[in-house]
Amino acid sequence: MSDSPQDALVVFTPSGKRGRFPVGTPLLKAARALGVDVDSVCGGRGICGRCQVVVGQGEFAKHGIRSAQDHVTAWNEVEARYQAKKGMKPGRRLSCQAQLLADAVIDVPADSQVHKQVVRKRAEVRNIELDPAIRLHYVEVEEPDMHKPTGDLERLLAALEKQWGLGDLDWDLRVVQGLQKTLRQGQWKVTAAIHRGQVLTHVYAGFRDKVYGVAVDVGSTTIAAHLCDLSTGEVVASGGLMNPQIRFGEDLMSRVSYVMMNPGGEAELTEAVRAGLNELFHTVADEAGIDVVDILNAVVVGNPIMHHLLLGIDPTELGGAPFALAMNSGMTLWASELGLELESDARVYVLPCIAGHVGADTAGVILSEQPHLRDEISLVVDVGTNAEIVLGNRQRLLACSSPTGPAFEGAQISSGQRAAPGAIERVRIDPGTLEPRFKVIGCDLWSNEAGFVEETRKTGVTGICGSGIIEVLAEMFLAGVILTDGTIDGSLAARSPRIEADGRTFRYLVHEPADPDDPRIVVTQNDVRAIQLAKAALYAGTRLLMDRFGVETVDRIQLAGAFGSHIEPKYAMVLGMIPDCDLAMVSAAGNAAGTGARIALLNQKARDEIQQIVKRVEKVETAVEPKFQEHFVEAMALPHKTAAYPELAKVVALPEPRLPEPVGDGENGGRRRRRRAG
Amino acid sequence: MSDSPQDALVVFTPSGKRGRFPVGTPLLKAARALGVDVDSVCGGRGICGRCQVVVGQGEFAKHGIRSAQDHVTAWNEVEARYQAKKGMKPGRRLSCQAQLLADAVIDVPADSQVHKQVVRKRAEVRNIELDPAIRLHYVEVEEPDMHKPTGDLERLLAALEKQWGLGDLDWDLRVVQGLQKTLRQGQWKVTAAIHRGQVLTHVYAGFRDKVYGVAVDVGSTTIAAHLCDLSTGEVVASGGLMNPQIRFGEDLMSRVSYVMMNPGGEAELTEAVRAGLNELFHTVADEAGIDVVDILNAVVVGNPIMHHLLLGIDPTELGGAPFALAMNSGMTLWASELGLELESDARVYVLPCIAGHVGADTAGVILSEQPHLRDEISLVVDVGTNAEIVLGNRQRLLACSSPTGPAFEGAQISSGQRAAPGAIERVRIDPGTLEPRFKVIGCDLWSNEAGFVEETRKTGVTGICGSGIIEVLAEMFLAGVILTDGTIDGSLAARSPRIEADGRTFRYLVHEPADPDDPRIVVTQNDVRAIQLAKAALYAGTRLLMDRFGVETVDRIQLAGAFGSHIEPKYAMVLGMIPDCDLAMVSAAGNAAGTGARIALLNQKARDEIQQIVKRVEKVETAVEPKFQEHFVEAMALPHKTAAYPELAKVVALPEPRLPEPVGDGENGGRRRRRRAG
Repeated sequence: MSDSPQDALVVFTPSGKRGRFPVGTPLLKAARALGVDVDSVCGGRGICGRCQVVVGQGEFAKHGIRSAQDHVTAWNEVEARYQAKKGMKPGRRLSCQAQLLADAVIDVPADSQVHKQVVRKRAEVRNIELDPAIRLHYVEVEEPDMHKPTGDLERLLAALEKQWGLGDLDWDLRVVQGLQKTLRQGQWKVTAAIHRGQVLTHVYAGFRDKVYGVAVDVGSTTIAAHLCDLSTGEVVASGGLMNPQIRFGEDLMSRVSYVMMNPGGEAELTEAVRAGLNELFHTVADEAGIDVVDILNAVVVGNPIMHHLLLGIDPTELGGAPFALAMNSGMTLWASELGLELESDARVYVLPCIAGHVGADTAGVILSEQPHLRDEISLVVDVGTNAEIVLGNRQRLLACSSPTGPAFEGAQISSGQRAAPGAIERVRIDPGTLEPRFKVIGCDLWSNEAGFVEETRKTGVTGICGSGIIEVLAEMFLAGVILTDGTIDGSLAARSPRIEADGRTFRYLVHEPADPDDPRIVVTQNDVRAIQLAKAALYAGTRLLMDRFGVETVDRIQLAGAFGSHIEPKYAMVLGMIPDCDLAMVSAAGNAAGTGARIALLNQKARDEIQQIVKRVEKVETAVEPKFQEHFVEAMALPHKTAAYPELAKVVALPEPRLPEPVGDGENGGRRRRRRAG
Repeated sequence: MSDSPQDALVVFTPSGKRGRFPVGTPLLKAARALGVDVDSVCGGRGICGRCQVVVGQGEFAKHGIRSAQDHVTAWNEVEARYQAKKGMKPGRRLSCQAQLLADAVIDVPADSQVHKQVVRKRAEVRNIELDPAIRLHYVEVEEPDMHKPTGDLERLLAALEKQWGLGDLDWDLRVVQGLQKTLRQGQWKVTAAIHRGQVLTHVYAGFRDKVYGVAVDVGSTTIAAHLCDLSTGEVVASGGLMNPQIRFGEDLMSRVSYVMMNPGGEAELTEAVRAGLNELFHTVADEAGIDVVDILNAVVVGNPIMHHLLLGIDPTELGGAPFALAMNSGMTLWASELGLELESDARVYVLPCIAGHVGADTAGVILSEQPHLRDEISLVVDVGTNAEIVLGNRQRLLACSSPTGPAFEGAQISSGQRAAPGAIERVRIDPGTLEPRFKVIGCDLWSNEAGFVEETRKTGVTGICGSGIIEVLAEMFLAGVILTDGTIDGSLAARSPRIEADGRTFRYLVHEPADPDDPRIVVTQNDVRAIQLAKAALYAGTRLLMDRFGVETVDRIQLAGAFGSHIEPKYAMVLGMIPDCDLAMVSAAGNAAGTGARIALLNQKARDEIQQIVKRVEKVETAVEPKFQEHFVEAMALPHKTAAYPELAKVVALPEPRLPEPVGDGENGGRRRRRRAG
């Protein structure tokens, strides 16, 4: 950079950074000097093509410059060779080769920026700034000289310092073990993978510009992975599998019990989950057409028990009060320490846990949903067997876990099933006739539309999936079939054959199959009770956090998790799963925990950020909070015994609170009891 | 510390540090405030007994204080309990319990100092200041609280910071894996092992004050280990074994060849040496009555090829020019990374290498012999199959390696054998009669003394060990049996039956056995030639370093290595193995490489020191140095063709340079040749 008026003025867009440089300065050098964000893996050797720019053409009044193609040098051999080999879009130049001749406006396209934005689908969340923990640096290493003996490693480190300013690097033994062969294979030209600017993690012979990372969400039921190209941030393959630990117990507590009852059981569980991860890594690598050893970074989230078991830590302490975590900091490990079949020196970052029941998955949810970056108060609910709940804003964050049980996942529901073709996922009930219509997964028609029977012949109508259960219950409530206390109103049996007696209670018939061998799809009183218990636990947890925060309402609600993503927010609110809120401010967040892992994979600073955030999360332990029981009981009513739903009422005609007729019901019950006694 | 005259004045000896403290101040606290070196593992809880002091009695004119027992508080319960349980020497007090009541002189005995001196046997070298890399810290950890959830690890780290000022500690996954059990076993009282004040390396339940380290010298032939108590610096067990790699080749180059010829051979060699180390660790641990997992630190030295193979690095590059090391920095690894059966988180420090032929063993030699701390110029020679040579002083250090071959170890010598009972180790030859007398290992008598035959009946006289060969050759030279060029003077056959014809050359009879089945012990012309070649290589290497340094003489010489330690310096000089020097300044250094490892084990700063020193060592590559050949040829003569030995001449009557009679010899040779031709 210079102040001499004879020097050429260059303005980089979109940053607007400008400065004068002597004629002959390579554009990349000028950009670096001005702090303009231009990528480079090869360090200005015209190999990687990452530093492409576009030279502005014409008058740029705003900058006071006339810019033209010939204000930079014509293509040299290096640039021509790159173009011949790999091609460039029209108008593009390699900024490491093109030199400034006169004033110019130089545009740095998004794909040439180091910190490019990785766009997320949802409008309300910020994009991810690409800044991966692993970066590649091409270097040319001095050959050994027996008169000035230094190690091959030390000469590589010196080259990294000289050519890239990467000083004081740490290294691993495994890097050294393979180094001599790699250096000679690459004829002293190698590409070094550096972790967080601090550790030499792997060395490739010759030039290389692609390396991969994987974001993993280890759920109790499912393990999901996204394989990302660390140079673009793109997801190149995704996959999931059942957590192989399921053979030791369906839910978390049964797995902890297995460990308690079987000495050494924790090692079996650890081995199982690691084997699952390895299988998944091979699956996604195959899908992307790469080798697992091309994966140099992994980021893992999971609830505390999954977290501990993956790390080889006995989870017994998490099975009972005071639910002590072995550790609650995030940590970076070697893949080989965890027996993971990535490149053996790949770094595995595990997000921090928050409390004994609030894990690294919740940390991931926070990273994804960013309640801590907003002024308004967000409620983030990740619904699963346990619900993790986060409430807060820029000033304050609270979290808890609430034991909702598996009802939301369709377990313990008479016609419940997992979301698969044939499962009912949408339901509407006519308040007049009490007749339902529904949609099943795999068919776009409603059940009362022409062609439905034909189109669903193959799958059948086999059950109700989780989000379908929420809808059918909410519609039953809105149609008056379910009363405020959750009772199915038996008196309606007189009005509609859909209401059937079921022992001492009633049930609602959703679907009568044509073939009597096929299942009748019904909603029983027990089904309603199971969902009521689950939703009351969820609401009570939320309510505890709102009490602690000192608010009566929240400004926005994000429903995370596979289930939360499929629920229609309106119906969740009708059932009182969540507090009242402007429905426009309620949204599905998808697998937010997994997204959090992907954010931490693509942006190293997010790791430091979440480590700081979790420190200030206030944890509420629902299991011992005296108010929890009270909130729970009040939340059993639909939508709630005391809480108002004014926002919901604007869009939905909520029925007047109505309880079973005390006399009739009493007589009814009394009669039956008497009959049985007789 | 305070300036108030009402406060009591305390003077600590031997440091002389003094200050005033309020009455009631524990002596340990006062010592800490003054920076007095007092040890403590338990942090002032009266458990470890490391902080013992002696209260001075009487007038201390020098300090202006009258001190008395009752100037500190009487024994409290804690101190009484310690005394009852573990006992204390009379007059000793626990400084963490005894409190200052009035002016006092407090003596800190050597065994209560953290940085006590570990005394070395040799007067000319400095003692080792005890400052091990692993230190133990007893802490009481807060129990988990579900309302303020933090990990057990984080609470332990907080306790270490609060109770010991150890902030920002790093930790290992393996520590976390066992932590919850350990904390509960110890009822939240544990002892943490901290590596270099930076890494939490291991946690023991309850109080513990002993931990061990092992110093290892991996030689091509022998592996030696010293097990040390890290709290006292004492060597508690020592052991050695043959390097199991010997089955892949006797010398270094044959092992490198094995690797080159057999794909995967480097892994076999690595496994072999690691298995050897593990066997040795178990041996020394058994001898000391401890478990190998009580060993938390190891320090290893070895030549570059042993160094690389132990680390799992293919040594092929070291087999040919430019002899490139994979790395030349020291490094700290986990025992588990190297497959070493110590505590799995034990840290293994490997000293830095200097050049392709000058390894971590030479770094150890430098640490032990400290040429870099002296103003005078030291020559340090470590004699083995290769000789490592270091020359220099405070300003400048040079090093090289010279290929002496195995002759000094008794290989290729007709009557050579290893140092064992029955081997000749001392020899004197009467210059008049040319009759020898000698001593064998296992008998204190000279062979011409009464009773020698009886005393050696059991062992016999079986051969000549390495140092014996040096002596017999030097004595032969001094007696005129060997001429300046190394020829055994056949003309003396006329004077003594000890000179025997041996084909075209002559030999000297050292010992004629009584039983004709026992071996005749002789020195042949070939034996003389083998030693000449070896000593010429050694001298030429030394000479190259002297040339480079620009000196004609050295001020002191240290002979390291098992062989170097047994040579009589005078005879080494008579043969011209080493340059002339005041014999009082020539000494044996023992296994200096192993001692260097022990220094780095007991004093962590020595690791930083050697890392810095090796950077400034100038390496001379003998293999390609043109002058080497010239120096080698000149050094074939005894003691040397051109170099003078004035210092040696002061104590030994060196024979006038004498070559074979040209005429006689020529005729003789001519006759023989002619005879054969005929």
